[in-house]
Amino acid sequence: MAFRLTPKDSSFYDMFTASAEHLVEATDVLSEFVHEHTRREELGNRLRDLEHTCDQATHAIFRQVNSSFVTPFDREDIYNLASDLDDVMDCIEAAADLVVLTKLGTLPAEMGQQVALLQRCAQVTAESMPRLRSMKDLADYWIEVNRLENEADKLYRRLLSRLYSGEFDALEILKLKEVADQLEEAADAFEHVANVVETIAVKES
Amino acid sequence: MAFRLTPKDSSFYDMFTASAEHLVEATDVLSEFVHEHTRREELGNRLRDLEHTCDQATHAIFRQVNSSFVTPFDREDIYNLASDLDDVMDCIEAAADLVVLTKLGTLPAEMGQQVALLQRCAQVTAESMPRLRSMKDLADYWIEVNRLENEADKLYRRLLSRLYSGEFDALEILKLKEVADQLEEAADAFEHVANVVETIAVKES
Amino acid sequence: MAFRLTPKDSSFYDMFTASAEHLVEATDVLSEFVHEHTRREELGNRLRDLEHTCDQATHAIFRQVNSSFVTPFDREDIYNLASDLDDVMDCIEAAADLVVLTKLGTLPAEMGQQVALLQRCAQVTAESMPRLRSMKDLADYWIEVNRLENEADKLYRRLLSRLYSGEFDALEILKLKEVADQLEEAADAFEHVANVVETIAVKES
Repeated sequence: MAFRLTPKDSSFYDMFTASAEHLVEATDVLSEFVHEHTRREELGNRLRDLEHTCDQATHAIFRQVNSSFVTPFDREDIYNLASDLDDVMDCIEAAADLVVLTKLGTLPAEMGQQVALLQRCAQVTAESMPRLRSMKDLADYWIEVNRLENEADKLYRRLLSRLYSGEFDALEILKLKEVADQLEEAADAFEHVANVVETIAVKES
Repeated sequence: MAFRLTPKDSSFYDMFTASAEHLVEATDVLSEFVHEHTRREELGNRLRDLEHTCDQATHAIFRQVNSSFVTPFDREDIYNLASDLDDVMDCIEAAADLVVLTKLGTLPAEMGQQVALLQRCAQVTAESMPRLRSMKDLADYWIEVNRLENEADKLYRRLLSRLYSGEFDALEILKLKEVADQLEEAADAFEHVANVVETIAVKES
Repeated sequence: MAFRLTPKDSSFYDMFTASAEHLVEATDVLSEFVHEHTRREELGNRLRDLEHTCDQATHAIFRQVNSSFVTPFDREDIYNLASDLDDVMDCIEAAADLVVLTKLGTLPAEMGQQVALLQRCAQVTAESMPRLRSMKDLADYWIEVNRLENEADKLYRRLLSRLYSGEFDALEILKLKEVADQLEEAADAFEHVANVVETIAVKES
């Protein structure tokens, strides 16, 4: 290992980018999971593996914070960013697991739309992470995530409205709500990530 | 535009006061909404407009933080205070929307009592915001909000106890719980606002 | 009262230790509560008293922060640690109260297992609090709490899977979910406590 005078803090950008790219993959798998009724076991296992990978990546970031002399931004913000990215993954994996646990069959179309919004959130988040290095063009990202989260909110309410329309009985509503709530929470978690990025950018400005 | 040497940071106090006054109006409208079964569409629209106004006010505060050289207290606390005030409004609007979405008719008396506590929270919050300037007499405010939130907790449990008493079927319980949970969350959000004010005051002391 | 030159900030360690020890007692009482169907009224009252004691302890910490010149770590971290310990107690007391409110009888074995994990969380938390003084051997504690919280997550899902297995009707599921969610929230709250300790340790390192 070569002697280095400067701390290798640039690795944080790569680590955040990697975590966000796991979310792109996970939302893509979740989209297949929602639409392809028969492949749920296989796809659910892939989500569990991704969740595990993301968990290890999060802890690697935590260890890197602890062992770095200098960090590119406040240690607490690095912590928050890493945990919030991890929270998104937890919600995605939990949503899929709840579909399996409650033995739900075909899901309402609105759930597919919820997942499509999560895919978009993951893409803009992954694209923004490398820009933390230059701190440029980050506002576009958090504005877009806020917009997507607003969309997700409206969609969630449209779904609730359908759940209570009389089409479903109480037990089905309960099961579908478990999943819908978890997807809604994933959208909120993406917004938390964007809020941390905004906080970091405000401090740097 | 006149030349100014000092940053116009005093505008923050006015902005927080305005946000909190929107909450006074919103809780008053919500009270009518809960009691006047037949005017729900009109009152629901007014709450949606208020939520939109509050949203714009919150983002104006965020922009002001970003463009100010000096802020009256930590940027992060300004952020938290603005978002927490916004959270209260979101809960209030969501509660009304859920009543409409689930097509609930007459609501249990306990919900009117929940809203009455929210009205009181909004009043003391709006009265306290201008006192952030002098940092005087703020403890009375957060103690009162903590007391009100305790009351709200007890009331929420009394409501749950009634929901599960056998008077309602599972589907009705589900619908009423959606609304009750949102009102309970509004009370919690008022407490978060008070906690940020307490944090600010502790730092200044 | 003797004259002292140095602020008595060491009292914080004792206060946190006392709060955590209340949680050990509360989880022990909750374990009896879950298993001993007939003593629920008496045990519920003991939990209410403990919640009240913990509340007073939390406010004593807040007052101590406000009146200390020097604090052993950041005022905000002291606040967060005190509130997060208090949140655990609130969840424990709420879980028991919901069992009483919804008039549940014998509880599923998985709930007893949830409570056993909470007892273990409380023990390791109480053991770690005095170590805040030396900042030594704290990593073992937060790693263990994270492991226990993972266990609690898996157990919670196993319980959900059973709730939706067809064994229970919608109304029973609703009641049992109220309690299960509260116990799951208690495990999350223990993890929040561990996260604050980790944050404090990172700053000190």
